[in-house]
Amino acid sequence: MKLIKNGVDYPKGFLVSSTNCGLLKDRDDISLIYSKVPAECACVFTQNQVKAAPIIWDSEITSDFSKKQAIIVNVKSANACTGELGYDNARLTSELVSNGLGLKPNEVLVCSTGVIGLQLNMDKIEKGVEVLVKDIKDDISDGIKSSGAILTTDTKNKVVSTEIEISGKKVRIGAMAKGSGMIRPNMATMLAFTTTDCKIKQSVLQEALNKITLDTFNMISVDGDMSTNDTAIVLANGLADNVEIDSLDSEAGKLFYEALYKIEESLAKQIIGDGEGASKVITTEVYGALNKDDARKLARNVVESNLVKTAIFGGDANWGRIVSALGSADAVFDPERALIKINGIPIFENGQPLESNQEKLDKIFEDNDIVIKAECNLGNSNATAWGCDLSYEYVKINGEYRS
Amino acid sequence: MKLIKNGVDYPKGFLVSSTNCGLLKDRDDISLIYSKVPAECACVFTQNQVKAAPIIWDSEITSDFSKKQAIIVNVKSANACTGELGYDNARLTSELVSNGLGLKPNEVLVCSTGVIGLQLNMDKIEKGVEVLVKDIKDDISDGIKSSGAILTTDTKNKVVSTEIEISGKKVRIGAMAKGSGMIRPNMATMLAFTTTDCKIKQSVLQEALNKITLDTFNMISVDGDMSTNDTAIVLANGLADNVEIDSLDSEAGKLFYEALYKIEESLAKQIIGDGEGASKVITTEVYGALNKDDARKLARNVVESNLVKTAIFGGDANWGRIVSALGSADAVFDPERALIKINGIPIFENGQPLESNQEKLDKIFEDNDIVIKAECNLGNSNATAWGCDLSYEYVKINGEYRS
Repeated sequence: MKLIKNGVDYPKGFLVSSTNCGLLKDRDDISLIYSKVPAECACVFTQNQVKAAPIIWDSEITSDFSKKQAIIVNVKSANACTGELGYDNARLTSELVSNGLGLKPNEVLVCSTGVIGLQLNMDKIEKGVEVLVKDIKDDISDGIKSSGAILTTDTKNKVVSTEIEISGKKVRIGAMAKGSGMIRPNMATMLAFTTTDCKIKQSVLQEALNKITLDTFNMISVDGDMSTNDTAIVLANGLADNVEIDSLDSEAGKLFYEALYKIEESLAKQIIGDGEGASKVITTEVYGALNKDDARKLARNVVESNLVKTAIFGGDANWGRIVSALGSADAVFDPERALIKINGIPIFENGQPLESNQEKLDKIFEDNDIVIKAECNLGNSNATAWGCDLSYEYVKINGEYRS
Repeated sequence: MKLIKNGVDYPKGFLVSSTNCGLLKDRDDISLIYSKVPAECACVFTQNQVKAAPIIWDSEITSDFSKKQAIIVNVKSANACTGELGYDNARLTSELVSNGLGLKPNEVLVCSTGVIGLQLNMDKIEKGVEVLVKDIKDDISDGIKSSGAILTTDTKNKVVSTEIEISGKKVRIGAMAKGSGMIRPNMATMLAFTTTDCKIKQSVLQEALNKITLDTFNMISVDGDMSTNDTAIVLANGLADNVEIDSLDSEAGKLFYEALYKIEESLAKQIIGDGEGASKVITTEVYGALNKDDARKLARNVVESNLVKTAIFGGDANWGRIVSALGSADAVFDPERALIKINGIPIFENGQPLESNQEKLDKIFEDNDIVIKAECNLGNSNATAWGCDLSYEYVKINGEYRS
């Protein structure tokens, strides 16, 4: 299965357009994803108890598992901590789109990212929607350009796509994301949009997204903080005309799951690779944990440890900090049984460091990818977490700027 | 109740001495606390599953709640991840002291702090113990000087003492601590030693220390990481000759508890004030949480948020990051009900920012103490957590140096 750099308009029947409506000075700041036919919709939202208005709106209109046909995305304001007016503006945004495209408001999802506590400028949003609706009606679409319009402090567009064959039909998946680089003056937001022309039951699509999120989006950490706006949405419009997937256990179900997994995993890695101020990507692979939950906690604890993150930034393969981060996780860990490697070099075994290998470690920091493998020898569960180092640049970006 | 800057030799019958035995170049690196009579002993150790050899030794000899008479403390090596040899060296260290002072080995606690994975240099330790034992026999004691001998990268001595009256007798408490500034190349360690001449049942002393630790040492965070060596020990030798305290509910019990609480709270605050690279102390007071556990989790989540820490470092009273940190805690929080103040200035209410107060906030950063008050309006439980900002200096100290 090959991954290619196409956007959300890669699958059959999907269009995406973006424009500048004046929210930002010099780049596109609003974009619209559209499916020519109603699409099954699966989504996951932030677990933060402080939820932005669009999260509340989207949760409401998806609670009946109904089909969706469009997603409108704006930057600049996260529309979080904005009270009733904020909620009304989220609803109004979806109405502007649904009126323009002849849809029902509950068929249009709304996503916002940017400053917390700042109300949406609805005049500008309205102008933007007009342009985008016209583009869509004119069949104008640009998946790469639009993937730039959802970014905030990200430095790179994040798109990925693939094609598989199910029951003799070509099935395509396309995706774009906005990263978790911290944005001034408030939270990062992770937005991930995935489209597919696969024919699949909504409940099965949701089951797939839930499972995949646990091992992809929930396993990346730039700084352990959780946004008020995090959202991952998958739209499936069925235009590939494959035999409908009604179970993940079926041949076709497994095939689609694997493809969707690779897509979301790619987005997750692209997000981490673009983490603010990050100079290195830290991958922690935990093997042989007591259970899956323990494996995830152990892996996350390493990539979220400030001591590990600063050591890696400083080019220090600090086994002591790694072992201690594993030992302090809310999961079973026994240093006497553990074998720890950094980029293939064993550094810790039988509760003690393998000093002989310390010199070899210096070379690994010529590489920007640091892979920590922890073999727990306690059970059969594995998990991988992705993080990045903690640099001066991170402190600068998040410390120097003022609200 | 007045707090004064005396060390662990302030209470009746306690001596403490320190010397340089060559573990470090130019300052005292080993110290010995001694009680002229056997003392009741209460202690708490790190929850990290990677435990240093002295932690294992101390846990063993305190498991029978027997009385103790000495504590030997070394810096330079944490004697963690050092295998059987490390354990034997911890035991041997206590034997050197017990032989010198005519005690049983299980009457001597051992504490180490420094580099993980480095074996103790027993020749130097032996020389050091000889000097310290002679000092003790010669009645030589210096609580302030010794408080400097247990430090690592700390910049200040940390001592505190007080005196209360119980059943007509003067009861004294003295204490010293080593902070949680990160040490090269590995973990921070918090060591807290408290002595008192109070007459109190061991089970009651342990109950007091356990309760107090939850609201003091467990509520401070420099960077959320947990050491392999964290230890808090209280010795009570009874020489004040007060009526023995057999319950914390008694008049005397309450009085002693309050005094011990103030002592440990003072050590906790001194540790945070000396956090590595810290330029500001962040205090988070949570009021009206659903229960005590929630209150503690909410308060800790704020002082452990890298986004909050960098914002404070940058002089940014970033209410959005504070609210989001509260919302992402594993505890009930409702932004619609919360009232949040920074240094007395209301900044968030009814789910929205109080923009009008934003200018006033600029001034508060002239102060080095930032106090965040979060009134949850959910219940009656309160908690306070102490942390420090995340500075370039922190990244430098923990990133630039090599193992």
